Amino acid sequence: MAPIRMHVVVPITTPDFRASADFSSLFDGGVAVTQSQIERGPASIECEYDEALAQPDIVAKALAAEQAGADAVVIDCMGDPGMEAAREVLDVPVFGPCQTSMHVASMLAHRFSVLTVLERLAPFFEVRAGRYGVAGKLASVRAVDIPVLDLDRDRDRMVKTLTEQGVRAIEQDGAHALVFGCTGMLGCADALAAALAEAGHAGVPVIDPMPVTLRVAAGLVASGLAHSGRTYPAPPLKERVG
Amino acid sequence: MAPIRMHVVVPITTPDFRASADFSSLFDGGVAVTQSQIERGPASIECEYDEALAQPDIVAKALAAEQAGADAVVIDCMGDPGMEAAREVLDVPVFGPCQTSMHVASMLAHRFSVLTVLERLAPFFEVRAGRYGVAGKLASVRAVDIPVLDLDRDRDRMVKTLTEQGVRAIEQDGAHALVFGCTGMLGCADALAAALAEAGHAGVPVIDPMPVTLRVAAGLVASGLAHSGRTYPAPPLKERVG
Amino acid sequence: MAPIRMHVVVPITTPDFRASADFSSLFDGGVAVTQSQIERGPASIECEYDEALAQPDIVAKALAAEQAGADAVVIDCMGDPGMEAAREVLDVPVFGPCQTSMHVASMLAHRFSVLTVLERLAPFFEVRAGRYGVAGKLASVRAVDIPVLDLDRDRDRMVKTLTEQGVRAIEQDGAHALVFGCTGMLGCADALAAALAEAGHAGVPVIDPMPVTLRVAAGLVASGLAHSGRTYPAPPLKERVG
Amino acid sequence: MAPIRMHVVVPITTPDFRASADFSSLFDGGVAVTQSQIERGPASIECEYDEALAQPDIVAKALAAEQAGADAVVIDCMGDPGMEAAREVLDVPVFGPCQTSMHVASMLAHRFSVLTVLERLAPFFEVRAGRYGVAGKLASVRAVDIPVLDLDRDRDRMVKTLTEQGVRAIEQDGAHALVFGCTGMLGCADALAAALAEAGHAGVPVIDPMPVTLRVAAGLVASGLAHSGRTYPAPPLKERVG
Amino acid sequence: MAPIRMHVVVPITTPDFRASADFSSLFDGGVAVTQSQIERGPASIECEYDEALAQPDIVAKALAAEQAGADAVVIDCMGDPGMEAAREVLDVPVFGPCQTSMHVASMLAHRFSVLTVLERLAPFFEVRAGRYGVAGKLASVRAVDIPVLDLDRDRDRMVKTLTEQGVRAIEQDGAHALVFGCTGMLGCADALAAALAEAGHAGVPVIDPMPVTLRVAAGLVASGLAHSGRTYPAPPLKERVG
Amino acid sequence: MAPIRMHVVVPITTPDFRASADFSSLFDGGVAVTQSQIERGPASIECEYDEALAQPDIVAKALAAEQAGADAVVIDCMGDPGMEAAREVLDVPVFGPCQTSMHVASMLAHRFSVLTVLERLAPFFEVRAGRYGVAGKLASVRAVDIPVLDLDRDRDRMVKTLTEQGVRAIEQDGAHALVFGCTGMLGCADALAAALAEAGHAGVPVIDPMPVTLRVAAGLVASGLAHSGRTYPAPPLKERVG
Repeated sequence: MAPIRMHVVVPITTPDFRASADFSSLFDGGVAVTQSQIERGPASIECEYDEALAQPDIVAKALAAEQAGADAVVIDCMGDPGMEAAREVLDVPVFGPCQTSMHVASMLAHRFSVLTVLERLAPFFEVRAGRYGVAGKLASVRAVDIPVLDLDRDRDRMVKTLTEQGVRAIEQDGAHALVFGCTGMLGCADALAAALAEAGHAGVPVIDPMPVTLRVAAGLVASGLAHSGRTYPAPPLKERVG
Repeated sequence: MAPIRMHVVVPITTPDFRASADFSSLFDGGVAVTQSQIERGPASIECEYDEALAQPDIVAKALAAEQAGADAVVIDCMGDPGMEAAREVLDVPVFGPCQTSMHVASMLAHRFSVLTVLERLAPFFEVRAGRYGVAGKLASVRAVDIPVLDLDRDRDRMVKTLTEQGVRAIEQDGAHALVFGCTGMLGCADALAAALAEAGHAGVPVIDPMPVTLRVAAGLVASGLAHSGRTYPAPPLKERVG
Repeated sequence: MAPIRMHVVVPITTPDFRASADFSSLFDGGVAVTQSQIERGPASIECEYDEALAQPDIVAKALAAEQAGADAVVIDCMGDPGMEAAREVLDVPVFGPCQTSMHVASMLAHRFSVLTVLERLAPFFEVRAGRYGVAGKLASVRAVDIPVLDLDRDRDRMVKTLTEQGVRAIEQDGAHALVFGCTGMLGCADALAAALAEAGHAGVPVIDPMPVTLRVAAGLVASGLAHSGRTYPAPPLKERVG
Repeated sequence: MAPIRMHVVVPITTPDFRASADFSSLFDGGVAVTQSQIERGPASIECEYDEALAQPDIVAKALAAEQAGADAVVIDCMGDPGMEAAREVLDVPVFGPCQTSMHVASMLAHRFSVLTVLERLAPFFEVRAGRYGVAGKLASVRAVDIPVLDLDRDRDRMVKTLTEQGVRAIEQDGAHALVFGCTGMLGCADALAAALAEAGHAGVPVIDPMPVTLRVAAGLVASGLAHSGRTYPAPPLKERVG
Repeated sequence: MAPIRMHVVVPITTPDFRASADFSSLFDGGVAVTQSQIERGPASIECEYDEALAQPDIVAKALAAEQAGADAVVIDCMGDPGMEAAREVLDVPVFGPCQTSMHVASMLAHRFSVLTVLERLAPFFEVRAGRYGVAGKLASVRAVDIPVLDLDRDRDRMVKTLTEQGVRAIEQDGAHALVFGCTGMLGCADALAAALAEAGHAGVPVIDPMPVTLRVAAGLVASGLAHSGRTYPAPPLKERVG
Repeated sequence: MAPIRMHVVVPITTPDFRASADFSSLFDGGVAVTQSQIERGPASIECEYDEALAQPDIVAKALAAEQAGADAVVIDCMGDPGMEAAREVLDVPVFGPCQTSMHVASMLAHRFSVLTVLERLAPFFEVRAGRYGVAGKLASVRAVDIPVLDLDRDRDRMVKTLTEQGVRAIEQDGAHALVFGCTGMLGCADALAAALAEAGHAGVPVIDPMPVTLRVAAGLVASGLAHSGRTYPAPPLKERVG
């Protein structure tokens, strides 16, 4: 059986945000992961305006990946920017880590909180939870107050702040699971879970959006599933400038 | 008192979609209306992909209007494309006809239906109603099955189909008010209301989104109100390519 | 064009609660505002019982205004007492400042709080938000703990307490906009906004219900809109004693 | 043990709408039922305006009953007019048949429909279900299209139409229980249940609001329960004219 | 008239959890109460697993009661374990104290809180409130942190802790009524209400689930009502092992 | 890397309902699937009573599988019977196909319908959707009116009826994806999708619950995730009879 080809679109212009190996170790055969990056758009995505600027090239890169043979596309940002548009344009399934993670968290726990970068994003995640149909499962959104591009500079501080906010989400907001609210937090789930356990909160799932989304997406591709053509019909033919 | 300067951004590239006089007659003094049009984007907006392509230039045109002295900006499309992004970027208030019309309809009637161009847009309006907080007021979405750019070719057929779908919305879906689901239906509210009255449904408000939005927006500008800076804080400074 | 004639019904019996000039300065031509006051009912409205007592004469005064040529009626109380009944009885549109303000706040902000007079009114506003279809937009209801008729005695204290409660609504409840929960707070929006800005919360819209409602209502009247005859059909003919 | 004294307030002015024996046979000892009728208000209640007119005297009659020794008051109308106001004014519990019936129906069935007199009342019952917290349990509202005061003229026709609408509620709307939407339908539950059984729908509970409310209310009185003083605090002292 | 025969199924195996007199004094004639206890299942019910183990024998005991002539069955546990299954199997009505109490609390108050034994049960009550259609009425769930079988060892401590949590529910969570979240708290409502009154919270209804449920259930039986056969049709005939 | 060991508990007593090969072909290495079957319980699960009878042995079999080394357990029934109880008892993750499928359908489509065996199960799926937090995504529940154990007798008739009901779900109820409402429909997704495409409804995802759940579950196990210990803490130690 040919391996499933997953493609990751990195929707920001900052070079080297992802190493090529970031997702390659997730699967031990049967699934290959490629990636590409947008060339026009913001250095990072932290507001609606950033999303608006990134979307056109996200769709273009997703389409290019499909044309190059990808079996599915995952957009590497918790804003799921361009997911709906790309679903209209592509035939192969397109996944967003926010949507997938929120549904996985809803499966595993009574309620979950999102731990994101900036407080200004709280309404954004509430709106997304509503759009994805799981508003009632979202306990709260809390922020570490570190911009996306600074996350990598001090991973220890990030984990420490994630732990502080995670404990508050659990104790004050009723969170039973936690979801990273930025894919730049990649790889910190084990560290956060360990720190939470030390703080008396073992057994709280910590969802690292990109690995979870890639694995769930691969499972759905293997099941022959894609997003609904009725929800996301192909765009009408018309002139589009630029 | 200086007149309030309202600016309309036409978010499609089709030339002459709007005559310059379309909105000038709405106000009898005290309010001036200017308009501009995007140069990069789709010929019309009928799907998420069209919206994604249109948004960057919508924000640019809205910002240019603010810099030219506009007191408020209204985006001339029932998708409210770019409204959230433009609210982040601009200081003056930005309005979308979908949001405004849905709230006005909610004020006037127990439930309302949206009469739009294509059936594929039904989920879109349900998502928007949810995002705007009035999901429970939306009775249904019905379509006339005429593409945006064909609406103008046969206004009689449009009104006839609007009437058929409006009657169904009232009788089968429980609509107590109707909202046009495309700003290309501008100017047909009286004709539809008259046809509904003939069909036994007098007293059902028909909301023509752009005039209603411009007037409500002017009232809010006169009251010194703008969108919340807490919901829409200014975008962080960063590099943005393109 | 003849000016739009807005009529305000003051639904309490306390004399001189409103000066005749209170609303006359809102419009600079094109709109005239008249007002009348009920003669039977409570001195102020602070509970369901007060509303029940006020409603019959509110409808009577609204009807008299319509017969005298009013183009629209606004009820000057955040309880919107008698609005539904008056909408059944009148042909011209009837507006309530609670309904209008809640929808305007929903348009401008992710969530809003109501700042009202007495804590006992919190359930009332939650019920109204539910009835108006925007329960999900209401962050909280907070009270200044000053009875309606005392508001005017010490405006400085009122603004100080409004500021304290407003800050809590913003910081603890997630409010992104504030709505006065009593029309007796008329004229304090700028003072509250300034005090909030000093407290670090610039950019939070403060909605003064009566001016906003009058302006929005005038805009809807200009658009030829009224409440739905399907939601509010005329009362059946029958004997009604008293 | 002294018997529980239930008092029924008939909130319409039509004489002889209730015979004194209507509710006396519900209890076989331990509970006594008295009744009184308003003198100012509408001949029947079929709209918001009727409710507004009836409420002041309903509260007065309820208060008089309490002063005469009643242990609880039930308002004999499916609009529950004046229930909230009377709860504020009285110390003894006040019950409305709409609220009680909707909660009982919610206990017995997945979803229920209301069968009422006039189609115009559908929004009213939806609003009440929302206010009472059971909006999700209401399958539909259907009407027999017979005014309140005509119900008694042809009981056979009423039951026949109730059956037709009940069958539609069950088969088309998913109703698993039915609630009379007018207390003027008193005494028809068995006939309707029998007719439904003949139509293939045995086992669908039919709730006759007044008997059910009186019995549930008596059970709550026996349990020492009343409405919450926190939801319905006593009205502030003030001048009230009329 | 023959007395109504209510039967209580005690769904735990701990002997002498209930004295035979516990419920006999609730009714002064007209209603007789019998009880039985399961023989296979948990010593107490404090989690989903306990419920799963108890359910088969609960249904068996309920069926036996019906065959012995009971007019209605009440399951003596706030988890309402086996209620849905028993409703399918029995013809006579089956009631659960959680469902009944939540609906009664919803009738009496704007919002209610549940005071239960262990914090781990909070999600359980939220799920039940959702299933019963009153999620919006549940203010919070608070726990006294005393296992079911220890409740009886120190009633004073239980009331003291109930008071502490009740005060928090009222002051911090907005509860306007309180519901015991374990039927083992039987008989403490008056003591809690008195303690709350001393703490400044008179007028907050305290619902003792079993007495309230038995009385409401008796009222519904007297009204000829049972759960809907459409929601709970009889189980299909088939082989069932064990 | 050792393969992931998935274990399927078949929660009915009918022998040979599953062939051992049913799930073994889903994974091409890396995942092994074992299965077991309950010995006490119903021949099939078609009502709440069947679930109640099956649950104790489901938990026992799940626990035995964990003790034998399973990395995860999936319960082979769309009722997800015993899932919550088993999650409390087991350390390894437990999955139910109803929960997983509903969340997957929510990810792929605006709304989904469930196609199940018997109409009586419609409330059951609505309740589950509510419990799982996706009530707003469920368009409808439709039934093929074939008992579980008859499904296998005439697969052609099953697919034909699934197609009829699927078309109605799409055209009348607004379904954009379909979920099998019984795991006995295993293996029919491709046939149904093909028949729908012929009926003009290509592009509507058909979710076959067991394969999808096993694959998603394997992905979550690979990600180190399990259900939340805060939602499903281990049962307290106590005597449990039977």
